[in-house]
Amino acid sequence: MAAATSTAPANQARDQQLEDLLSKMTVEEKVGQMTQLTIDLILKDSEAATVDTAKLRQVLVSHHVGSILNVKGRAYTIDEWHTVLNAIHDVTDRTRLKIPVIYGIDAIHGNNYLAGTTLYPHNIGMAATRNPELVNRLAQITALETRAAGIPWNFDPVLDVGRQPLWPRFEETFGEDVFVVKTMGSAAIRGYEQNGKGQDFSVASCMKHFLGYSYPSTGKDRTPSYIPEQMLREIFMPPFKAAVEAGASTVMINSGEINGVPVHGSKYYLTEILRNELGFEGVAVSDWEDVIRLHTRHKVAATPKEAVRMAVEAGLDMSMVPTDLSFYDHLVALVKEGTISEERINTSVRRILALKKKLGLFEQVRPKAALKNTIHKAEFDQVSLQSALESITLLKNNNQVLPLQKTAKILVAGPTANTLAALHGSWSYIWQGTDESQYPAKAKTVVQGLMAEIGKDRVISRSVADFNAAANYNVAQLRKDAAQAQAIVLCLGEKAYAESPGVIDDLDLEENQLALVRAAKATGKPVIIVLLEGRPRVLSAIEPLADAIVMAYRPATFGAAAIADVLFGDYNPDGVLPFTYPRFSGDVLTYDHKGTEIIREDIPNAAGNRGFNPQWPFGHGLSYSSFAFSDLRVDKTTFGNNDNLKVTVKVKNTGRRAGKKTVELYSHDQYASITPSAKRLRAFSKVTLQPGEEKEVSFTLSAKDLAFVNEAGKWVTEPGAFDLMVGDLKTVATLQ
Amino acid sequence: MAAATSTAPANQARDQQLEDLLSKMTVEEKVGQMTQLTIDLILKDSEAATVDTAKLRQVLVSHHVGSILNVKGRAYTIDEWHTVLNAIHDVTDRTRLKIPVIYGIDAIHGNNYLAGTTLYPHNIGMAATRNPELVNRLAQITALETRAAGIPWNFDPVLDVGRQPLWPRFEETFGEDVFVVKTMGSAAIRGYEQNGKGQDFSVASCMKHFLGYSYPSTGKDRTPSYIPEQMLREIFMPPFKAAVEAGASTVMINSGEINGVPVHGSKYYLTEILRNELGFEGVAVSDWEDVIRLHTRHKVAATPKEAVRMAVEAGLDMSMVPTDLSFYDHLVALVKEGTISEERINTSVRRILALKKKLGLFEQVRPKAALKNTIHKAEFDQVSLQSALESITLLKNNNQVLPLQKTAKILVAGPTANTLAALHGSWSYIWQGTDESQYPAKAKTVVQGLMAEIGKDRVISRSVADFNAAANYNVAQLRKDAAQAQAIVLCLGEKAYAESPGVIDDLDLEENQLALVRAAKATGKPVIIVLLEGRPRVLSAIEPLADAIVMAYRPATFGAAAIADVLFGDYNPDGVLPFTYPRFSGDVLTYDHKGTEIIREDIPNAAGNRGFNPQWPFGHGLSYSSFAFSDLRVDKTTFGNNDNLKVTVKVKNTGRRAGKKTVELYSHDQYASITPSAKRLRAFSKVTLQPGEEKEVSFTLSAKDLAFVNEAGKWVTEPGAFDLMVGDLKTVATLQ
Repeated sequence: MAAATSTAPANQARDQQLEDLLSKMTVEEKVGQMTQLTIDLILKDSEAATVDTAKLRQVLVSHHVGSILNVKGRAYTIDEWHTVLNAIHDVTDRTRLKIPVIYGIDAIHGNNYLAGTTLYPHNIGMAATRNPELVNRLAQITALETRAAGIPWNFDPVLDVGRQPLWPRFEETFGEDVFVVKTMGSAAIRGYEQNGKGQDFSVASCMKHFLGYSYPSTGKDRTPSYIPEQMLREIFMPPFKAAVEAGASTVMINSGEINGVPVHGSKYYLTEILRNELGFEGVAVSDWEDVIRLHTRHKVAATPKEAVRMAVEAGLDMSMVPTDLSFYDHLVALVKEGTISEERINTSVRRILALKKKLGLFEQVRPKAALKNTIHKAEFDQVSLQSALESITLLKNNNQVLPLQKTAKILVAGPTANTLAALHGSWSYIWQGTDESQYPAKAKTVVQGLMAEIGKDRVISRSVADFNAAANYNVAQLRKDAAQAQAIVLCLGEKAYAESPGVIDDLDLEENQLALVRAAKATGKPVIIVLLEGRPRVLSAIEPLADAIVMAYRPATFGAAAIADVLFGDYNPDGVLPFTYPRFSGDVLTYDHKGTEIIREDIPNAAGNRGFNPQWPFGHGLSYSSFAFSDLRVDKTTFGNNDNLKVTVKVKNTGRRAGKKTVELYSHDQYASITPSAKRLRAFSKVTLQPGEEKEVSFTLSAKDLAFVNEAGKWVTEPGAFDLMVGDLKTVATLQ
Repeated sequence: MAAATSTAPANQARDQQLEDLLSKMTVEEKVGQMTQLTIDLILKDSEAATVDTAKLRQVLVSHHVGSILNVKGRAYTIDEWHTVLNAIHDVTDRTRLKIPVIYGIDAIHGNNYLAGTTLYPHNIGMAATRNPELVNRLAQITALETRAAGIPWNFDPVLDVGRQPLWPRFEETFGEDVFVVKTMGSAAIRGYEQNGKGQDFSVASCMKHFLGYSYPSTGKDRTPSYIPEQMLREIFMPPFKAAVEAGASTVMINSGEINGVPVHGSKYYLTEILRNELGFEGVAVSDWEDVIRLHTRHKVAATPKEAVRMAVEAGLDMSMVPTDLSFYDHLVALVKEGTISEERINTSVRRILALKKKLGLFEQVRPKAALKNTIHKAEFDQVSLQSALESITLLKNNNQVLPLQKTAKILVAGPTANTLAALHGSWSYIWQGTDESQYPAKAKTVVQGLMAEIGKDRVISRSVADFNAAANYNVAQLRKDAAQAQAIVLCLGEKAYAESPGVIDDLDLEENQLALVRAAKATGKPVIIVLLEGRPRVLSAIEPLADAIVMAYRPATFGAAAIADVLFGDYNPDGVLPFTYPRFSGDVLTYDHKGTEIIREDIPNAAGNRGFNPQWPFGHGLSYSSFAFSDLRVDKTTFGNNDNLKVTVKVKNTGRRAGKKTVELYSHDQYASITPSAKRLRAFSKVTLQPGEEKEVSFTLSAKDLAFVNEAGKWVTEPGAFDLMVGDLKTVATLQ
């Protein structure tokens, strides 16, 4: 059948060991390999981590299930993981063909499902570091701690480009820029996979979520995206292309739909683009329950069985069913009745078996007891702290109100001041990250972090509230306490959430938080706002009232320590925004908008702006020092398609403190066959500079690095002049 | 040249008279026909309506210009129009070929550029009437008053579908639904054109703005739209297709861009779709200055001359240059140097000459003095009042607080209470509609309208403020006055604006208006909100404080009288919303959203909603009576592609007042190859019912009426079950 066979590349790799195995497998055994179930189905009902052997036999022996995922209720200890996994493999060992089960989890910022583990800033903060080496190192640590638990497959990283700030998974993205996302995403992939070497410390990564998941029109999770083909190719595809090239083993599919087409049922996305264009040869797994939803939710399949047929014919290899055996039953029936060919499912089973082989599961699937000692190292904590430090972004600092004196008395208030959850966000020991009892002792709240920094007596926190407080925070107490304080630190932002529970209907920061700022300002004391939030919440109504604003994103375990270090000057902040921080909820634009977003400048408008007027631009981030760029130059003013351009700029620390500075190179196509973006990030580099020190930074660009997707959907670099920009400097090079 | 000739259909109609004329024309004369200039270029600098003959000769004789548009500064009297137009035609009569000039204006809701003329509700209100006969009648009156002034071409109607409520031209649209827009838009086209009959009372209409203008991503005017092809075809194209079929003579091009492609430079949109797919044979005119903007703004043309080449090769017939002769100079040069073939411009000149012939301009181009007496008839005023009455939409009426007793004392306040501009909006005597001195005496403010209804003594309006008042309205005065009043009418909404000056950054109603509602509520008196606004401004923060809410849109000359009639019960309201009124600025969805916009119902979210939670749904509108639907049935439960379905429902007036009820028939595809919409409007009908009266309403649908655009971009009606819905009733019919 043409429909079936075309989901396999003509040249699908064949491995003789696996072909021998495949030839012995029944249809049921093959379909079992394509079936992934949640751990709840094999646990005793009342227990979080105790396997029910009868259930396990039902799943693994009677239904040949090849993959299990997730935790139930909470993160497991390393011992619990070993026990659970050994129980699974005990049963697998008694199956006919003894094909090892592949276990997968969502270890999103550290192995968040391993109890006691240090967590790391969410991707949105990691993107602010502009430090891909840190991202790579985090992935390595996460891989090690995941593999040590006996788990060889991590559903990470998120490669979705974060251009819809309402979306509750925005914090899981590397922000709005394609180049940052593909750079950071590929660094994570390499950190997880380590080129397939080191089965004690590497895992299979998973590119999430193919394709267009991050751009729902209303921002609500798993709701429809409307993305023109040109934008899809220019903005959303490149991180996946780069990840395939970086060696990603698996991919997870977007639960949503693009232009009315559910991705799980789309041969165009799952085969034509993913396989034929991007050349991906690994395993494509569904997201949670998304196959049946082609029937129940998207209404493109008239029956549950038709939903299974549609997803498999589209190109899916494995269904994260995950709570019943319906996928298995329907797919067995579809193959037996000839609706889906056995050759079609062989294609997927080959990929799954190849993944298991690549991960070494045929030789060693059981957790190694010796690896228990490799986790929870002090050096991992250092990496987490360093990541938090490099992520924190100083958005505003009027009159150098920061850093604060350590001798000062500080009033701390606000709903994120004394909660671990807001520092960590989603995927923190539990899915929602909201259970404060699950956090390890080394995790501190901001109040605790400030106390550790300057002493308990210097921190007044009587008016700290949490999100569960009444609509209005304790403003009366705050006013009273302010009299004794030299400065007020207001910790604002968002409670922890993951996925749909984080849906909001408006970007504006809640009114009761704004009221707190007004009350603080009224005391006459300097007001420093610390933002703990997964997405930019609009605060233009009170921004003028703040003397300083510090964006901390979701900095995780050592976030409070990092915030304290920045507030009191032990660390000179160097994070820069990975997104455009909007000023108004109805005026959300990315930095790389078209020039035509600027409305006619000859006609003033009611709002008094000119069409692009963010609160803070992409790339914005202050320092306690100052830096100056000079001498931007390019080694050729004209170049050809096969030339490299070397762009050089000097950057100097003109202040009195050592610090790091991110140098960003942007380009602008002066004229192009479709309206050019205002600017596009083409390269970045972070340099450390002592006071007075100057360094030269060079970037190499090819014509290809300046390409865009034209009206026909093709990547092109058209002849003509390109502005090349660093800071306020600009030079020009012309492609001939 | 293939590029040039393909913009003309192979079968372009040839008229021997026009071919003879064309054969005599020089390149300069041909290019002049393709050039449209604004009236400013032929007026004495200091005068609003006095022609400068030397300038006129420069334009018409030296540059052969074939079209002029617009007014300068204000609406002209009928005598001024005749004088200006006769001066133009005096000069044309002395040109070599005496080709008549075609004059065009924007007569958007009545002939708004004829001084003293009655204006009509903007389209957004006309859509609320669900009365296409009224729309048709308005267009006839506008055509008559335009032609009486000597003007044969009206740049109307707007066929853009209003799905982006931030857009400042939302009020010019017929709202968010494709079926309503194409029904109302075609009714307007027929009213203007009258099948080409009656040169004393018909005009050439102009389909605006082809294509995708109304959907800019940030809502700002003339900024980029991102529209997937499927959506473009299903939502934005059908009103143009229907308008071509209704006989539209001309089309104006979208100033913006679709997916990075400026429409003025796109052969795909201007030739492949407009000509080859839609079969349009009339004149395509640019919007204001948009050809040169391919260079200056969109940056797709490296020079101004290249911009001209690109637009003409794309398929444009006439450039609304409009303030200089650059288009003429460049196009003459391009043809003379052979870059553009003369055959290419012949194609456009044929269309322009054919338009002039169809309008009778070759026989009678001068204004007829006798027509001066046909304008400003009392019956036109009646149509305007009736339109306003049928547009007004009663959104909320707790405890039947409305209608008010005429014996009550009423306190009136709010920024739209005593301004004509907010009642009229854009295109009212001047472009922005903001000059109160230009309005005729018959136009009344809401305060004046209420006084006329119940007497001056019963209306307290001391705390009326306007938009120019300080940030906070006079709340103290309002509190004081409330003691004497039985009810408070708060007139809220928006000041008048047109195009870019109406840009906003947030849908939320301004805080000072919300504060006024809170203050009014605090008095304990019933609070009735009257909304005068061109788009839905979010007011969920204070909606619970209002006892009644009346949406009046931009009801124009007799808007105040209509509002008074509704508030005091002289008219039983029957308008229904032509858009979904959003509850939150970050949660804007149309009624015909995909079912998948509803987020997973098993997971509560932070905002406590389920993904589609508007303030008021599309089609909502209360009455002082009540109506009940019953006995919905379809004459066939299964049908074929060539069958008609007859759907019948009974509607009964179950209240105690006569009234009108709009019956709307929706369909829902139970399963489809792309995710089906929650529902789609397929037919509507407005019926008048006495108390206790019941009528049967029937609709006829074909399979084609249930079609959608599939993934391949084709209109299809797929076999399967369709829900057919009226009110809360549902029946099912299955296509076999």
